[in-house]
This record gives sequence, structure tokens and C-alpha cells, in this order.
Amino acid sequence: MKIIVLAGGEGKRMWPIQTDKCLIPFLGKPLLYHNLQKIKLHLEGENILRNKAHLPGELGSFIIVTNPQSKEAVAKVAQDLGLNFQIAVQNEPKGMADALLSAKDLIEGEVLIVNAEDVLNPKVFQGVLGIQADVVLAGLKMDKYFPGGYLKVTGDRVQGIVEKPGEGREPSDLVKLVVDYFKDGKKLVEYLEKVSDPERSRRDDVYEVALDQMIKDGLDVRFSKYEGTWIPLKYPWHILDVTAYFLSKIDVDYFLEDSKIEQKISPGAKVSEKATIEGKVVIEDGAKVFEGAVIKGPCYIGKNCIVGNNSMVRESNLEDGCVTGFNSDITRSYIGPDSWFHTNYIGDSVLEGDFGMGSGAVLANLRLDNKDVTVGEEHLETGRNKLGLIAGKGVRIGVNASTMPGVRVGSNSLIGPGVVLRKDLKENKKITFKEESFEIQDYKATQISYDQFRDKLES
Amino acid sequence: MKIIVLAGGEGKRMWPIQTDKCLIPFLGKPLLYHNLQKIKLHLEGENILRNKAHLPGELGSFIIVTNPQSKEAVAKVAQDLGLNFQIAVQNEPKGMADALLSAKDLIEGEVLIVNAEDVLNPKVFQGVLGIQADVVLAGLKMDKYFPGGYLKVTGDRVQGIVEKPGEGREPSDLVKLVVDYFKDGKKLVEYLEKVSDPERSRRDDVYEVALDQMIKDGLDVRFSKYEGTWIPLKYPWHILDVTAYFLSKIDVDYFLEDSKIEQKISPGAKVSEKATIEGKVVIEDGAKVFEGAVIKGPCYIGKNCIVGNNSMVRESNLEDGCVTGFNSDITRSYIGPDSWFHTNYIGDSVLEGDFGMGSGAVLANLRLDNKDVTVGEEHLETGRNKLGLIAGKGVRIGVNASTMPGVRVGSNSLIGPGVVLRKDLKENKKITFKEESFEIQDYKATQISYDQFRDKLES
Amino acid sequence: MKIIVLAGGEGKRMWPIQTDKCLIPFLGKPLLYHNLQKIKLHLEGENILRNKAHLPGELGSFIIVTNPQSKEAVAKVAQDLGLNFQIAVQNEPKGMADALLSAKDLIEGEVLIVNAEDVLNPKVFQGVLGIQADVVLAGLKMDKYFPGGYLKVTGDRVQGIVEKPGEGREPSDLVKLVVDYFKDGKKLVEYLEKVSDPERSRRDDVYEVALDQMIKDGLDVRFSKYEGTWIPLKYPWHILDVTAYFLSKIDVDYFLEDSKIEQKISPGAKVSEKATIEGKVVIEDGAKVFEGAVIKGPCYIGKNCIVGNNSMVRESNLEDGCVTGFNSDITRSYIGPDSWFHTNYIGDSVLEGDFGMGSGAVLANLRLDNKDVTVGEEHLETGRNKLGLIAGKGVRIGVNASTMPGVRVGSNSLIGPGVVLRKDLKENKKITFKEESFEIQDYKATQISYDQFRDKLES
Repeated sequence: MKIIVLAGGEGKRMWPIQTDKCLIPFLGKPLLYHNLQKIKLHLEGENILRNKAHLPGELGSFIIVTNPQSKEAVAKVAQDLGLNFQIAVQNEPKGMADALLSAKDLIEGEVLIVNAEDVLNPKVFQGVLGIQADVVLAGLKMDKYFPGGYLKVTGDRVQGIVEKPGEGREPSDLVKLVVDYFKDGKKLVEYLEKVSDPERSRRDDVYEVALDQMIKDGLDVRFSKYEGTWIPLKYPWHILDVTAYFLSKIDVDYFLEDSKIEQKISPGAKVSEKATIEGKVVIEDGAKVFEGAVIKGPCYIGKNCIVGNNSMVRESNLEDGCVTGFNSDITRSYIGPDSWFHTNYIGDSVLEGDFGMGSGAVLANLRLDNKDVTVGEEHLETGRNKLGLIAGKGVRIGVNASTMPGVRVGSNSLIGPGVVLRKDLKENKKITFKEESFEIQDYKATQISYDQFRDKLES
Repeated sequence: MKIIVLAGGEGKRMWPIQTDKCLIPFLGKPLLYHNLQKIKLHLEGENILRNKAHLPGELGSFIIVTNPQSKEAVAKVAQDLGLNFQIAVQNEPKGMADALLSAKDLIEGEVLIVNAEDVLNPKVFQGVLGIQADVVLAGLKMDKYFPGGYLKVTGDRVQGIVEKPGEGREPSDLVKLVVDYFKDGKKLVEYLEKVSDPERSRRDDVYEVALDQMIKDGLDVRFSKYEGTWIPLKYPWHILDVTAYFLSKIDVDYFLEDSKIEQKISPGAKVSEKATIEGKVVIEDGAKVFEGAVIKGPCYIGKNCIVGNNSMVRESNLEDGCVTGFNSDITRSYIGPDSWFHTNYIGDSVLEGDFGMGSGAVLANLRLDNKDVTVGEEHLETGRNKLGLIAGKGVRIGVNASTMPGVRVGSNSLIGPGVVLRKDLKENKKITFKEESFEIQDYKATQISYDQFRDKLES
Repeated sequence: MKIIVLAGGEGKRMWPIQTDKCLIPFLGKPLLYHNLQKIKLHLEGENILRNKAHLPGELGSFIIVTNPQSKEAVAKVAQDLGLNFQIAVQNEPKGMADALLSAKDLIEGEVLIVNAEDVLNPKVFQGVLGIQADVVLAGLKMDKYFPGGYLKVTGDRVQGIVEKPGEGREPSDLVKLVVDYFKDGKKLVEYLEKVSDPERSRRDDVYEVALDQMIKDGLDVRFSKYEGTWIPLKYPWHILDVTAYFLSKIDVDYFLEDSKIEQKISPGAKVSEKATIEGKVVIEDGAKVFEGAVIKGPCYIGKNCIVGNNSMVRESNLEDGCVTGFNSDITRSYIGPDSWFHTNYIGDSVLEGDFGMGSGAVLANLRLDNKDVTVGEEHLETGRNKLGLIAGKGVRIGVNASTMPGVRVGSNSLIGPGVVLRKDLKENKKITFKEESFEIQDYKATQISYDQFRDKLES
């Protein structure tokens, strides 16, 4: 069986985050690494435990479809995992069918198609691969309406897919994931080519049309109902959900799900005796934690990070090379590599990396009118009561500046000292106070004796 | 004897504090509770020790005159203390005489009239009740001029009351308090009714006119000189004086004045071993004090308060449900219930309650020109070198905002992020930066290697 | 031999620092004290060890040339050191020749001329005094071009002095210091008088012209090559270099250069057990260090200083009577006497003294564009990647204000709360927000239950 991994699709809605979704690092490894490892471990386990027919050949014959710019990073991940893999490059982001057709020369026999960035429980593979049919689709059981593609089913058969039916008009409670098994990969390619006329290829539902055609033609299309974890990564604030997921798994060994590895502090890390480390915390090699610092798990502190004096880090993921500086408070946030802080509050924020923040700057995360945070001029609903800043790479924030909840800042932009940023800021921009905001006047200082002053200070 | 407690008079000068003065809580109980408890304990003690004639009937037959909106809260206080009491409602705030007439059907026999909000030493009651006469008034010995009503006396007799005579023209050094004993309460009512014609009832000196008439009519009006504590509560900054008084009394048992209860930490409170608690400190049930926090007494930390990591609280009163957050510095302040902070400085401030403050916001308490703090456009003198913010209920302050010494903010108003508030702000207003204060320009980020940067950060 | 110390010359380039360079205190003593002590110890050592001919008379016959306003302070320093000294007053700052002529009546026999503010290794004296000639000049070996006076030499003779020859046109690698020996002081005076016509005395190179004339006249003018420490003090940011020098010498005993006095905490200082003191640290009498404070050496904490709770001081010099307040971060800075802070960041800054800073104010020290810091409208190059504020005496900075890297503020000026200071500010000025920067609007607060809010705060 070939496992086709769709990696590096377009992520316009992820703005200002530019890293391909599947390459965003969590706990020191790209998301793709975690997801491929999960499949690998699952397949290895299956092989060992069951010697299943679905895995006749060698383990892990992966086809990874990616874009030109991510090709090398993606290949590196697969190599690091010791996978048997091939890379197919999709030159332009023209949807799922086009991605699959980019890999058509590699496709043969049984195929399992998965999204590179979907965080799922391995039992979804167990479910799909446990059913004998021409096509098996995973359907996620939903408790409330979600704007995705719903499976229309009869008994154990799929009758069709209904895109965004609207609340109350769902044909079932199953939303189609991308964990799709095809007994005959070649036939899938044929169907995709058949429905891909030049006009249609502009459309993004070619894959769904092909599936519909298969059903109409009488192929045996079934579904596997899945009730486990699924964390969508569509908007940048979803990175916080993915962060929370991985942090919650810090202590979980894959094969021994109930084992508890409470804390994992590298012998190469240096933690002051006057620091406090509580809960599930990983501290990697070369990291330093200074006096008075507090780390309340679950937390991941990457390689060579510095958690400075009196800083507090809670429920956050700090990738390699981050420096909290003196006295920062980092809470429920995703901090990309090589970011630095100094006496700051960072709450519920997503900072892609190479981020710098002057002393006293604050990323506000709670609206004072108590409303849920919305994003952008279109007021995208985030469903979050707390959401801080979302910043691309290379952003700098001046001393004593403030950003309002849910604001987005494009890469390499600068928010000047003292500025209050209330709206999104594009990339390569700076916002500062106008000179005219201030006025200079003559001033006569009042002199008091130092003793008087000292009294004031000490009292 | 009936003790008539005047509770819930008008408090225009207390703006923006809306709570009736006598219902403002200190050390977890309304001021009225403390003051009534003091009278109760005094009378109980007198009964036990002396079996005095002044207390023929049962202990504590109280008549509490209040306004419609405070009626229930006032009754609750009296119930909690187990008093024998009746409530009289004064429908409009029309002065002391009108308050007493609101209770006229309840008045009979001996009466002692006291103000609900006056903080006094119980020996004032001992003094007044120790003199046999038709009327006994308490006179507070003043060392310097105070703009109140002065007693004009001859021997042990009162000859009249002179309102605000002006400095150097005081008829004695005794300012009339409201601790007034009348042998015949009915007669007092008669006098009040006699001098209350419709025109005069608009005036606020009807009570004083009635007293003058009694003197003219030859009643035996005497005074008791009092030299103990009296803390006026006229302006909101006086709440700081009352706070300091109650904090200073944390360790004093009423009956055993010299007993020292240095610290009283509820077994239901959770105090980190890494926190520092010094001096007279009360920490109530359900409160939590985190690592690195410092509490320097005298301090009161109410129920379910959270003193967050590295926060410092000094000489302050925090009512129930307050949260200091990470790294706040609260000094010599009154903090009403359910207020929350996050990396803030709160110095010499009065916050009525339900107050919220974003990270980095500061309540300045010291003028940089070293002058004493004045309040409002009328430059009210406070006599205070340090005075911070005075805020009504429900005020919110944005991240990195600043308020200037002695500024007042009305309830439910919002001070936007980064704003510097230099003047009073009415209720239900918000102040923010104008959009035009900032400008956006193109910006080209300078790239340097991370190693260079790391060097800078670590050095 | 007479040692002529030139103290109190003009320091226009030191603006806004007003203290005479040689009177600026380091480690609790004026720079002049350190430098005179060094000469004194050197001469004492020479006397003891070698009984050299250069010191025929009594030790330390010093002539200190100073200006009228510094006369008393300078004399005090010499008295404190127990020197045998005379003071000459130069009434106007008219250059080195004029300074020497101000002392002409005191000059006789051998003279050694030194600058009061030059930080040098004592071996420079050893070098100059070890050569027998009419005149001996110290030449500092330079590795790269420096805009000073270069020695033109042949063999061991000086042929002339070339002022600022320009890079690549240096006549040697030796820059002339002011450590000049003259066998006959009277002759030096004659030469100076000869070349000082009224017109020329306006010029600042009279001394160099006199030297040239001596060479032309065939006097034996030699040089001593010096390769040790020399720290120029021309611009105020050089105070940071001098600070770093003295801090690095904290543990060095003059006579036993390798002795290590790691920490010297006065028995009269009070250091909390919960504070952290690391590295070379001096804490003087009467100082207090509170819980959670961290001092990372090398640091000097002067008399009666207070290092408040959770404050951090690194590689800094705090003169007497400074107060860090709660939670400040002072790094690589020079802090003059009687300065106070409160939750501030002070990085790479020079504060002359009597400086005050409200809570949350920040002295930025790093340009977000990563460029080296330049100073003033003329963009003076400092060669520093990190440089904070340079402030004269009596400056006040409001809460949450920010100053940009390398900005200078004249004495007794005020930077208002929240202000971002981007340019130099003259003395006796204040800068504040214009009232029009803010706007006030009606506001309706959203009510939520406290339980909801509490949930938000705790999560």
C-alpha cells in the first residue's frame, strides 16, 4: 500500500503565517514529523500485532506531494523518520485532485490518502484499513454543525458527499476527513483525469466530483465512522489548538498510552535551584532557566532557550533558541524559533519566529468589553474569549507598545515604541507615533531635599 | 435606651464611589458592621462590668435610619451581629433632622444618636453616657482648625454651636461629633418638628437649630470632651485613612487590647512555601498565594483572593475575590471586591470594586513636581503627597495605560490601552488614542544573523 | 618632583553631564580620587622598592589646576588621600597652556603633568620616569587610527607632534597621552609664555607649539611607549567604559594584583536570605537588598542603596542613596547618586544623579533595526550596539514613558507619562502628550457574571 501525504497546499487563510502548515514546528519537530511518525508507528504496530493483508510490501511506502519551495524540508522530515518515500511536486496550488495527479506516475495498487497537517488519533487508520471495499472514507462524527463536506450514507455505504449543507440540513452526522482508502490507485487516477477538464481544474471540487462518479458507477464506497481527535488548522489561531494538543501529549508514550513521563529535563539544560518547575515540562539541551523563573506545565522549552530571572511560562511551546529575558509572562502561546522577549506579557499568541519585543510591550489577549475576539476587518469569529497577537516572521515590537486582541502583523514589520496597534498591519510596514502627538514646553523643576524624597520612597 | 444609627446619608463628595459610606467593606465586613460591633461590645462590656443605669432594658435596641436602596444590606449587617433592631427609611436625603423624623414613631425614652460611618474609639460612648443631663454632646478636642461645628461652652454646659467659625475665631477647641445623648427622645422629636417648617426643611441645619432652641429654653445641655480616634469619611481618599486604621487594628483583640495576633492565615488558604509573609497579615479562606509573592503587613487578603507569582502587596486591603495576577505591586491601597490586575502598579489608590486592569497599566501616585496631590478641576486639597487613582465600580484600564495622581474615574468607564489619563473621567465614558496619533510607513527590516543577535541578547 | 594634575577642564562634549569629569564618582569615590590614589600608590611603591632619584623630595607634592566651581571638591579629594598638595585656579577654560600658566608661581624643578580624568595603568608613570631626558612624553601604541596627536619619532627621540594626521598618514603608531615629564619646570613656563601671545592664547594648541619649539631649539625630547589601559572620557557614553573598567577591578588589590576579593558586603548592609548575589559585588554600609532581588557582578551598590524586591542589577555601578524599587532591571549602567526607580528597565545608560523614573518607564538600549546607536542630530558614532539614555541631574521620567537608544536629556527636564522620547531634550523642558492625542466617547460596559470572569482569569 502507498500512503499519499498531501503536504504544502495553499494556506491563504493562515496569513500572516507563511510557513507551510505541515512544517510548523511543535515540540521541536515539524507538524509533518509528528503526523508521519504517528502513521509509521501505527503501521509498524499493525505489522507486528496482526500481520495484516493491507501491508503486503515493506512498511512505509510513502508518496509525499508538496510544493517547490517546501520540497527539501519535507524530504528532510521523511529521511529523519527513516521512511521509504518518494516526493511529488505540485507546481501550483490547484487543489487536491491536481495534487494527486502530480503524483500519478507513482500511484499504483492500494492507496491511502492523508492530509499532512491533520492531527488525528491513529485509530482512524485502523478504522479505514479494517474495512474491505473499493473505497473507504473516514467520517468524523460531529456533535454540532461544521461547515465541511458531509457524507450521505445508507447502511454501510456512502451515497454521496454534500458540501456545507447548512445547519439542520446535514444528511448525516459524519463530516468527511481526508483519510481515504482506494483499493485501486490507478482507477482513482483515471477518474480524476476524466473529470479534470481545463475548465473544471480551476475548481476545487474535482476530487469530490470524481468520488461522486465512482458512486454513480456502482463502485463499493464505504465509510468508517471516527470519533477521536481532529484538530483543523485553517486559521492561524488554530495553531494554539494544535499546541495545546501536543502539550497535552507530552507525557504520553505512543505504545504505552498510560505511561506518565512527568518531566523531561535534558542533562544538558541548566536549571537554577531557585526556579520552580511544575507539571508536564520538557526542557531541551542547552536551555537555561534562571533564578525565580517559574515554568508551569504543560510546557515545551526548546534547545538553547533562556528562561530569564523571574519569568513565568505557562502552557506554552517555545521552539529552539527563544529568550524570555527578565520578568516575562508567557501564557498559552505558540512561540516560534529564535524569538526574544524582555519584561513582556504574551498571552494566547501565535508568533511564527524571529520575533523581538522591547521591554514593557504587551500583547493584550482579553477584550475589556468581554466579547469574544474577532479577527480582521471582516470580523472573523474565532470562538475564543482570549486571543493575543498573530505575527509572521521577523516582527519587532518597541518598548511599551501594545497590541490589541486578535490583531495580525505581517512579516518583517515593526510596531514602534509606545504605539497601540488596534488593526492588522501588513508586512514590511512600521507604525509609529506622529511627531505632533507630543509637545515640548519650558519646565521649572521643584527642588526638594533628598531626605524628604527618601522618606517618600521608603514609606 | 435606643441607639439611633444614621446610615446612608447622601455622599456627593464621595464621587465616584457610589456605595453608601457605611456599607463600604473593610477587612471583609461593611464599615457599619465594624462600628455597630464596637457599640455592641461596648454596651455588653458596660453591662457586665457596671450594670449601669443607662442600660435598663435589653442590650442593643437599635434604630437604624437608612435610605430605600440600602435597607436590605443595612438590615443584613444588624442581623449578622445579632442585634435587636428596627429599620426606619428616609426616602430622600434631606438632612439629619429629617432622618430622625423618619424614625419618630420608634423613638421613645433615652436615645443616643450616632453616625454609621464615623470611626471612633468606644470611650466616646463611655464619656457621653457617663454624664447625667437632658442632653449630652461629644466634643472632639482639635489641635488645629477644622471646618466643622464648634461647641460654645461655659463650665460643663453647652451654650451653642457655631458652624465653621473660621480659624482663630473658634469659641472652644471642641468640634461637635455626632454622639448625642437625649434623656427624652420624644422631646427631641417635638423640637425637631417645631423648627421644621417646609421652608426650613430644605436647609441642613434644622437639627442644630433645634439644639439651640433647647439651650434657649433652659434644658440642661452638657458635653463630654473626647480626645481619641476620629476618622472623617467625607472624600473618597479618606477611605485610605479608614483602611490604614483597620489594618493597624488587625492584631488587636477588643477586650484584651494588648494581645497580638500577628498573622491569621486561614487553614483553607493556600500559601506557597516560596512566598514571603511578613508582619500583621490576615489571609482568608480560599485565598491562594503563589511562588515569589511577597505580602508585607499590615494587609488583609480577602476570601478567594489570588496573589499571583512575584506580586507584592503592602499595607493594603484586598476585599474578597481579588486577583493580583503576575507581578503586580499593590501598596497602601483599598481594593474593593472582585478586582483583578496583571503586572500593574497600584499605589495609594481607592478602587471601589469589579475593577480590571490590563498588563503594564500603572496608577501613578506621586507628582514628579513633588507637590501635594489635588483632586478635580477645583483642586481640592487632599493633604496627601501620594495619592493614586480613585475609581468607581466596573472600571476597566487597558494595557500600558497610565493614570495621574488623584484622578477620579466614574463607574463602568474604560481607559484605553496606552492612554495617559490626566483629568477626571465621568461614568460610562471611554478615552482612547485618536487614530491620527499614529502613522504607518513602509519599512525594510535589517537582517542580521541569529548568532549576532543571540550575542546581543546574552551580553 | 611636582606632579601637576590638570583637573576641571571644559567638557562641552560631555553634555548633558555637568559634573567635572574628574569629579564623577565611581565605586563611591570621584574619578580624581582613583587616579590620584593610583599615582600616590605608585610613587610610594617606587620609593619603597627602588628609592629612585626621580623622587628626591617628599612624596606627592601635587599641584592641582582646577576651575573656580570645582576648587573645594578637588581639594577635598586631595585631603582625603592625605596628599601634600597645592591648588591653582584657572578662571576660564582656555586650554592646557593657560592651565599650566595659572600655576606658574608653583612650578619649579622637575614636573610630571597628567590629566585628572585619564584612566591609565601605573606602568605609564614607571615608563616615563624611567627615562633620563629634558622632556619625556608618553606615547600610546594604537592598533588602528585614532583622531589624536601622533608622535613623530626617530630612534628614541621625538621630532614633532602631528595633530589628527588622518588614517594612513600617521607618522608612527604612537598617540601622545598627557603624561609629560619636564626636567626643568621653569623652562616649560618660559616656553609657554613665549608662544602665548594674546591672539594665540585663544587657540588650544599653545602647549603643542611650545613643545615643537623645544624640539627645534635642540632640547632632548624623548618618548616612552605605553601599551596598557587608556580609557578616554570625551563623550558621556565613555562613562560606561570607565564604569566597566572600575567594576572589573573590584577584586584587584593594588599591590597584590592577583588577589581575589570576590564579594565585599558591609556588615552594615542588610541582604535578604532570599536574594541572590553572584560574582564580584561590593555592597556598602546601610544598603538593603530585599527578597527575590538578584545582583550579578561585577556590581557596586553604594551606601544606603535599596535593591527592592525582585529587582535585578547586573554589571552596574549604583552610587550612594539609589533605590531600585520593586522589580527593576538595571544592566551595564552608570547610576549617579540619589536616583530612584520603580519597575523600570535601565540598560546601558548613564544617569548623572538625582534621577527619578515612574513605574513602567523604559530606557530602550537596542535599535530594532539592529544598527549601532548614534547620538544627536549630528549622528555621532558611538561604536556601541547597545546604548540607553544619557541624562543630566534632576531628570524625571513619567510612568510608562520610553526613551530611545542614545537620547540625551538635559538636567531638570521631565519626560511626561507615556511619552516616547526620540530626540535629545534640552535642560528645563518638559515633553508631554498633547491633549488632542486622545478622544473621549460614550461607552456602555458589557456586564458578565463574576464567575465567568473568574474563569477567564484563572484559565
